[in-house]
Amino acid sequence: MTVSPFDHPYLSGLLGDEAVAALFSVAAELEAMLAFEVALAKAEAETGVIPADAAGAIEAVAHRFSPDVASLRAATARDGVVVPDFVRQIRAAVGEPHGRHVHVGATSQDVVDSGLMLRLSRVLPVLEKRLGGLAGVLDGLAATFGDRELMGRTRMQAAIPITVADRVGAWRAPLERHRTRVTGLMEEGLAVQFGGAAGTLEKLGEKAPAVRAALARNLGLADAPQWHSQRDRILDLGALLSGITGSLGKIGQDVALLADRGDEIALAGGGGSSAMPHKQNPVAAEVLVTLARFNAAQLGGLAQAMVHEQERSGSAWTLEWLILPQMVVAAGAALRLADTLLSSLRRLGAA
Amino acid sequence: MTVSPFDHPYLSGLLGDEAVAALFSVAAELEAMLAFEVALAKAEAETGVIPADAAGAIEAVAHRFSPDVASLRAATARDGVVVPDFVRQIRAAVGEPHGRHVHVGATSQDVVDSGLMLRLSRVLPVLEKRLGGLAGVLDGLAATFGDRELMGRTRMQAAIPITVADRVGAWRAPLERHRTRVTGLMEEGLAVQFGGAAGTLEKLGEKAPAVRAALARNLGLADAPQWHSQRDRILDLGALLSGITGSLGKIGQDVALLADRGDEIALAGGGGSSAMPHKQNPVAAEVLVTLARFNAAQLGGLAQAMVHEQERSGSAWTLEWLILPQMVVAAGAALRLADTLLSSLRRLGAA
Amino acid sequence: MTVSPFDHPYLSGLLGDEAVAALFSVAAELEAMLAFEVALAKAEAETGVIPADAAGAIEAVAHRFSPDVASLRAATARDGVVVPDFVRQIRAAVGEPHGRHVHVGATSQDVVDSGLMLRLSRVLPVLEKRLGGLAGVLDGLAATFGDRELMGRTRMQAAIPITVADRVGAWRAPLERHRTRVTGLMEEGLAVQFGGAAGTLEKLGEKAPAVRAALARNLGLADAPQWHSQRDRILDLGALLSGITGSLGKIGQDVALLADRGDEIALAGGGGSSAMPHKQNPVAAEVLVTLARFNAAQLGGLAQAMVHEQERSGSAWTLEWLILPQMVVAAGAALRLADTLLSSLRRLGAA
Amino acid sequence: MTVSPFDHPYLSGLLGDEAVAALFSVAAELEAMLAFEVALAKAEAETGVIPADAAGAIEAVAHRFSPDVASLRAATARDGVVVPDFVRQIRAAVGEPHGRHVHVGATSQDVVDSGLMLRLSRVLPVLEKRLGGLAGVLDGLAATFGDRELMGRTRMQAAIPITVADRVGAWRAPLERHRTRVTGLMEEGLAVQFGGAAGTLEKLGEKAPAVRAALARNLGLADAPQWHSQRDRILDLGALLSGITGSLGKIGQDVALLADRGDEIALAGGGGSSAMPHKQNPVAAEVLVTLARFNAAQLGGLAQAMVHEQERSGSAWTLEWLILPQMVVAAGAALRLADTLLSSLRRLGAA
Repeated sequence: MTVSPFDHPYLSGLLGDEAVAALFSVAAELEAMLAFEVALAKAEAETGVIPADAAGAIEAVAHRFSPDVASLRAATARDGVVVPDFVRQIRAAVGEPHGRHVHVGATSQDVVDSGLMLRLSRVLPVLEKRLGGLAGVLDGLAATFGDRELMGRTRMQAAIPITVADRVGAWRAPLERHRTRVTGLMEEGLAVQFGGAAGTLEKLGEKAPAVRAALARNLGLADAPQWHSQRDRILDLGALLSGITGSLGKIGQDVALLADRGDEIALAGGGGSSAMPHKQNPVAAEVLVTLARFNAAQLGGLAQAMVHEQERSGSAWTLEWLILPQMVVAAGAALRLADTLLSSLRRLGAA
Repeated sequence: MTVSPFDHPYLSGLLGDEAVAALFSVAAELEAMLAFEVALAKAEAETGVIPADAAGAIEAVAHRFSPDVASLRAATARDGVVVPDFVRQIRAAVGEPHGRHVHVGATSQDVVDSGLMLRLSRVLPVLEKRLGGLAGVLDGLAATFGDRELMGRTRMQAAIPITVADRVGAWRAPLERHRTRVTGLMEEGLAVQFGGAAGTLEKLGEKAPAVRAALARNLGLADAPQWHSQRDRILDLGALLSGITGSLGKIGQDVALLADRGDEIALAGGGGSSAMPHKQNPVAAEVLVTLARFNAAQLGGLAQAMVHEQERSGSAWTLEWLILPQMVVAAGAALRLADTLLSSLRRLGAA
Repeated sequence: MTVSPFDHPYLSGLLGDEAVAALFSVAAELEAMLAFEVALAKAEAETGVIPADAAGAIEAVAHRFSPDVASLRAATARDGVVVPDFVRQIRAAVGEPHGRHVHVGATSQDVVDSGLMLRLSRVLPVLEKRLGGLAGVLDGLAATFGDRELMGRTRMQAAIPITVADRVGAWRAPLERHRTRVTGLMEEGLAVQFGGAAGTLEKLGEKAPAVRAALARNLGLADAPQWHSQRDRILDLGALLSGITGSLGKIGQDVALLADRGDEIALAGGGGSSAMPHKQNPVAAEVLVTLARFNAAQLGGLAQAMVHEQERSGSAWTLEWLILPQMVVAAGAALRLADTLLSSLRRLGAA
Repeated sequence: MTVSPFDHPYLSGLLGDEAVAALFSVAAELEAMLAFEVALAKAEAETGVIPADAAGAIEAVAHRFSPDVASLRAATARDGVVVPDFVRQIRAAVGEPHGRHVHVGATSQDVVDSGLMLRLSRVLPVLEKRLGGLAGVLDGLAATFGDRELMGRTRMQAAIPITVADRVGAWRAPLERHRTRVTGLMEEGLAVQFGGAAGTLEKLGEKAPAVRAALARNLGLADAPQWHSQRDRILDLGALLSGITGSLGKIGQDVALLADRGDEIALAGGGGSSAMPHKQNPVAAEVLVTLARFNAAQLGGLAQAMVHEQERSGSAWTLEWLILPQMVVAAGAALRLADTLLSSLRRLGAA
């Protein structure tokens, strides 16, 4: 089943991003959830909540644990979330006496949300590196073609001549701001989610803060009070992703318009047509616009998930699952395509 | 890679729909595109555009054709659409002298859009049947519990007592309207798309209308002038899908609120919790809300694709690919979940 | 206060529509709500629910009734809806013994939703007429310039030459479909909403169907069972409005791209610039794109309001108030601007 | 004309915000644009671009300038933006020899975007103060009711008991983060927009940086390179506004659900019903959900405006005008309503 082009055997060649999608694969998801349970067991051993032996046994089993996916699927259909069955399987794999020490004091949302943050914390350096790489490509364009004249165009009309450097500078500046935001998030660290059944970590008593701090440290995440029903962090990440695709969509639209006019740009490559083999379609430029508009629509949906009722909203939370991963991959794909597109320009500005 | 829960090994158990997703699988997509090329060859043989032998050869090859997906992937990344390479592969499989008669006068969008209509025309009966089945389930609820009192609630406050039949009737009526719309589309038939390079079928000359009519007939679609840059049909389909998930989302929200209060409903099953095994979460009800909000956001994105510039917009068209299939599967999943949910109610109304 | 450009003293000159906005003015809204109360009183007199004298007195007072808007404002802030205070004021104006016969068996949503349908039923002929007018303008363009060559452009690249008639035909076809939809709605009639406190018209007993039928007849609306928590009709209207602006946005985008290239179009007028007095900006064309994208985003929001919980959702219903009127005016404005734009083309196609 | 409830004589009592809407009134808009022209004249006098006398004359005229709004309206309809006529009117009011020194080197977007930033810089302290006030109200609730038991509810089901302090803490934490963001923007200052016809300030030559710096200083804005086609700042502001309404919408939803159950909350006031005078509807709570969902949908639309082609996109820029002011007022209204709602709680938690 391949409903989304991001997962599609051939459309993903155009619209997907292998590197980023790998960080959001099922394997990565299961690995992150397992990493949570191991880190939690270690944190609870460090703080005396569970025996050190148990943590060792859990970690040992995790290295060789391979979940029964059919069971996970049936259980997710029933429970609305994979974690109860996932934990059951790990406990069974660990066996007694240590199995009971898996997932102590935690709830499904802790595993899923912290697992998400773990995966996102691996995506951030990819975004950062690509934004930096793209800035370099734009610097190269400015160095090569910067002095050439380009007709400045406002409201779809020739305004006054500018230079290629002016246009390229307008493309580059927001990417720099996005990169600063990404770097900031990397430095702060994404926040661990750990709250237990209803956010109060009631089973851990006085040790709760210490367990959470150790858990965060073990996972390489930032320690923070539980935020299970506070989704502003998720919205902020979505806005960043949509900002990136939006800024790249502007570049794509500009390149497509240059290609439509044809006199101020020379594209290498470009897509073929089944009816007109002579055409050189600015495919990557168009798809940048597509991904910008896609993420814009998704951002509107993600913002709806802010209305997250009570201590945990099944409906709002699940809505994020349908939206956020696609936004991440769309941002990755847009960065990939922008690099391809801009790296292959043979000329920018008047001939 | 499993970016979308609809494609996900275990999340699709909750959020997906096997039957509908199968109609939007890659296999179904390739099959529909192949069906287009065969139907076109036959139509062109019937109208004397290509030799009858060629159509026969093309059809024969189609039965055993298995595309090179790696090649399709690479070509899609380059061309922005799979068709040029797909046609190239079919032509190679057919070989000369008949290979040149594949795809005569057609363009990529003809194949993709007509292929989409073909697949959607298989989805419509599924929707129709499920909407009908759901009406039956609701009739059953009305028959069993209809006379029971239910507190009518307006603005989140008790208003006056109504009956279960009143509430169930309000759930049922829009489903009937959606079903009427689906039935109407099935009767009219979805429209074939056939326009050639720029919508004028210029290569077919005077025979163009006859070829298009025969093509439509061969595909079981409705004959219609080309609509490649007119996307109102797509928006209408999207609005129908979002209407269905919206009406089911209202049911889901109502059931979730009944479950939150707890006195006027008895759910069978319901999801478990990793932290609180005693809970009976109204998972299907919540997910109906999720799918309603998801499709609502997607509908906004799909409507953006109405701004389809010139004779073919790569960016607007590709945006539909990212959105419409997910909306279809979301509607299928919502109908499935609504059936599960409503079929399993042990009691509705006061005990 | 002028938060929306549609209400703005000078931006409404660009973005608004006086004729349509007048049908959604406060005066029109109050008039429609008053018409509901008069029609209800007459319907209830006809069916023997209230004395004929009372209906006469209510109608007589309605002709001279001028509500206290400051009171309405304060009451709306408190009650979340204007109707309770509006009815209180009418009852006071009618005085006893007849005042008590105002609004018998009705609830706020009956007044507001039926009032909305009444106003929309006045908008439909405006849309119909303008869509027809626009078809005429396009026919004129086809008659004048239809044979001229225009470069067909796909994926932002020259494809093959087409004619102006081809392009204009692609603009016209969806407008015809929208018009058919509008005409269909006019023929069916928009549905009255009448359900009382919780949709059961419990105060009217056996007479309820007859009262509702008479009410609908008196208002010129279609009789239909209450639909207060079933918002598919609203979504359908929104999809129609977004379809109209989307199809016009496609025209606007095409014209803007023609203007950007400059060789195949001659615009009369066009906007000036504060920095470059020589420019002829295709302002109306751009704004058509704006309105298409605006309504697309609003449609996504309107679809969220389908999740209308229980017998009446204050939150979902109020969301419609924020969105639907703007969509109506945006559609009106787009039709107005498209007429202006297309009527003023001096040339289309090659010179 | 009152298309938007935010501008509506009585609906604005419920949905609007007088203080914030005043900062987005036409008067405020004209005042901000005039402030730009005065600040520019002064900056250009300081840097020797125009005579000091001219700047003095322009400032003097500005104090008594009252624009001809009918002329602005007609001109906006023609030009797509108010500035050309606005500048023409100021120049006429100043008269020669100084009139020619108005708006030197600037373009429409400089005036509108910097004027917007000026108005937003007045809104930020309002948001900051209200977010702070709300934190105080929540602290008060925690102080009064914090120890009371509240049933923690996950997935619409009773989970485990928590305290009122736990719930109130979850409400408060995101508001604190939003406030930190607002404070950060206030400290950095919003960025002046000044680029001239196509972003290069070509008419000011070497003096351009000094003029822009002085302009920013005179307006109390932050100096920054032109950003006319880089709309990430606008998206960030929109995400902040939607974040605020989203976090408040979560509070509203929680309160509405508490009111639906009824046992753990006592509301003062609450709205009346035309059919059932006994009800106490949680109107403000519901409207918080409405405003959250409204801004969420708008955020999706605003993100579409990131695809801002070339040096100035009439269509994307105008789309912002239709969306951003409403988002600002929605955020203001939500803060107002949250204060009303939470200040009036008579009890939270078990009785």
